[in-house]
Amino acid sequence: MTLLESARKNRLTPVAKQIAKEEGISEATLLQRIRQGTVVIPLNNTHSLKKPCGVGLGLRTKVNANIGTTTDNPNPAKELKKLAVAIQYGADAVMDLSIGGNLQKMRAQVLRRSTVPVGTVPVYEIAVRAQEEKGNFLKFTAGDMLSTLEAQAQQGVDFFTIHAGVTRASLATLKKNKRVLDIVSRGGAIIAGWMRANNQENPFYEYFDSITDIAQKYDVTLSLGDGMRPGSVLDATDRAQITELKILGQLALRARKQGVQVMIEGPGHVPLNQIEKNMRLEKKLCHGAPFYVLGPLVTDVAAGHDHITGAIGGAIAAAAGADFLCYVTPSEHLRHPSIEDVQEGVVASRIAAHAADIIKRPDAIRWDKEMSIARQKRDWKKQIACALDPIKAKKYRQSSKPHVFDVCTMCGRFCAVKLSEQACRSS
Amino acid sequence: MTLLESARKNRLTPVAKQIAKEEGISEATLLQRIRQGTVVIPLNNTHSLKKPCGVGLGLRTKVNANIGTTTDNPNPAKELKKLAVAIQYGADAVMDLSIGGNLQKMRAQVLRRSTVPVGTVPVYEIAVRAQEEKGNFLKFTAGDMLSTLEAQAQQGVDFFTIHAGVTRASLATLKKNKRVLDIVSRGGAIIAGWMRANNQENPFYEYFDSITDIAQKYDVTLSLGDGMRPGSVLDATDRAQITELKILGQLALRARKQGVQVMIEGPGHVPLNQIEKNMRLEKKLCHGAPFYVLGPLVTDVAAGHDHITGAIGGAIAAAAGADFLCYVTPSEHLRHPSIEDVQEGVVASRIAAHAADIIKRPDAIRWDKEMSIARQKRDWKKQIACALDPIKAKKYRQSSKPHVFDVCTMCGRFCAVKLSEQACRSS
Repeated sequence: MTLLESARKNRLTPVAKQIAKEEGISEATLLQRIRQGTVVIPLNNTHSLKKPCGVGLGLRTKVNANIGTTTDNPNPAKELKKLAVAIQYGADAVMDLSIGGNLQKMRAQVLRRSTVPVGTVPVYEIAVRAQEEKGNFLKFTAGDMLSTLEAQAQQGVDFFTIHAGVTRASLATLKKNKRVLDIVSRGGAIIAGWMRANNQENPFYEYFDSITDIAQKYDVTLSLGDGMRPGSVLDATDRAQITELKILGQLALRARKQGVQVMIEGPGHVPLNQIEKNMRLEKKLCHGAPFYVLGPLVTDVAAGHDHITGAIGGAIAAAAGADFLCYVTPSEHLRHPSIEDVQEGVVASRIAAHAADIIKRPDAIRWDKEMSIARQKRDWKKQIACALDPIKAKKYRQSSKPHVFDVCTMCGRFCAVKLSEQACRSS
Repeated sequence: MTLLESARKNRLTPVAKQIAKEEGISEATLLQRIRQGTVVIPLNNTHSLKKPCGVGLGLRTKVNANIGTTTDNPNPAKELKKLAVAIQYGADAVMDLSIGGNLQKMRAQVLRRSTVPVGTVPVYEIAVRAQEEKGNFLKFTAGDMLSTLEAQAQQGVDFFTIHAGVTRASLATLKKNKRVLDIVSRGGAIIAGWMRANNQENPFYEYFDSITDIAQKYDVTLSLGDGMRPGSVLDATDRAQITELKILGQLALRARKQGVQVMIEGPGHVPLNQIEKNMRLEKKLCHGAPFYVLGPLVTDVAAGHDHITGAIGGAIAAAAGADFLCYVTPSEHLRHPSIEDVQEGVVASRIAAHAADIIKRPDAIRWDKEMSIARQKRDWKKQIACALDPIKAKKYRQSSKPHVFDVCTMCGRFCAVKLSEQACRSS
């Protein structure tokens, strides 16, 4: 039985009960939200996780980090180091997006080492295999697709990104309504290429019921990918994007009907003032399914610093209802990320998530209070312990020691907190 | 005659005409806004600048970078290097906040080298001098204050931060309504200390007309500082902050009456969902004066990464009407910034400013369009040239060369843009 099916029978798994406790909500509330599909717990039924998590309405905003080998010089060891760093810096989930080297072996390693839920985009393996076995990455069949999904589910993957919304209908909309950048989703582009090469409907759409059968069997959460996400702020919230979102909403209902947990992936590049509308649209068109956003990036021009662009959009999105932020690293648009990029990406997304949680969850601000009290007391040990990234905070503090121990080298003897303590408190 | 006085006589200076042109607004519109006080051009009448700028309604959102020596090991050469870096990375203005070493000499160097407007917080020099000359930094007189202001104005400073809103009334409000952190403004804390030590009203408030006389003589723009800005998200938009803001609004009218240009400084640490309200309040209570915000920081816990926290708040603030963003560096709350911190701080604020300009100014998105077209064409030279920080973009691109020249090492042969070009365009 999947988590959704057991919730329908008013039963919560021990993992779900633990999550309710950690999130500070009642078991009854969590049960209701799982049943309604507004909360998912991505957890394959073939294995257990040290740090499972829930994603959705009223829960802490979660952060995902992507890792994975690429086709240029695949280096699995480096990707596994990224996995460790992502988890160390607080990622709530990871996706193994490997496309180079031995994908199955890599995934096995990721699944063995990860303490947090692991997601994949199975079409990558499907395409890579077609390339290896048939000399053309577009030569896979629906059968190849399903057998790869089954194998990955069996291996223990917790959530699949499935680009089932790239259909003849949404592609026609895309072609009719010119964009600056057509498809910027790797999975979406592979599928669009396949559809053109094979002159057939998207197999992820056509065989969606077979996909939900596999997902149901292993309780794999489906993350319905947005192959049509805008890749430029000029393309945001356009017809192709919304056409796809409507399709994803229909598929979400079909997945739920099969007892399969489902979340929806979202943009992308979106101007700041369209983000809230995008969140509202998703919740409405996709029946309250958790929203997993890729950014959003609020400008196209910040290559090298897109973790910041993504943090701006992510904070606004999460405040307006996004439940799950896919990190963006400083390497976005430029290169395969380094280990430091992964670290910076996770931290930036966590800042965005927490900034939103402050206004979404009544108890989130306690953390800020603790830090602010430590600041008032000039308790540096506590300030470092309270920092979202205590490693960098400590490094900075140690790199620049003040002459007087309780201030910092910014203001030195003119430390405002110290002066105002004397001026405002001692009376 | 000040810029404001000449605007009242329907005259625009050549500098203002040039700014109208650069900003893409008509001279008549700019004239009207200067007259109404919704736009200021901080430019001391004793000197000229290579890159003067306007700040306010309808103009591009500007970014300020703070530099300056501190009391621990003052190193003027390093601060001058920061000045150069801040300007190189696109700061529209700088503030010399030096408090260590020879302040006058340092300021002379900054004024000589800066191509952009230079601001100061004169109470720093006033306090440092009192310490040097009288052995106590709180032993300055109103006369000392005015003579320092006059000397700095004569030296060519373009804008002064004046903490005139820290008054007996606003301090009483602060004491009555407990905060987590009282005063986090260095200038505000010095003044509160002075008021307590001397048992007198704030001289910047009491002698405000004498200050506007000096400002009028040299056309120094007054930036009315927010000594009561919240230093924790828990203190945001509280009575002390709003009491001070109302005082600043009254002082803004008095300054304008004297022909003096004025802007208002704002928070600080503010939860994401209070930022818009703060912007509206300032515009209302301060009669449309340009708003110069310090962040805002949307959480207290991100020490080491507060350029990101500030970029999130700054983007939301600028989108809601803030005109001028004071940068925040990764060093905030931890140490005196390094040169790299200055660089990162300027870039983060510029991302925030541009993300807001996309929705405030119809032509701002052209830059994003140019970048996105370069992405579609996989024109890497153009993508790097279009990047807000081309130096980092180039470094990243060069550090990780793909096997196929027109893609990047992230997706390699599965480059979505390239695949979708084949799938969507060639039909």
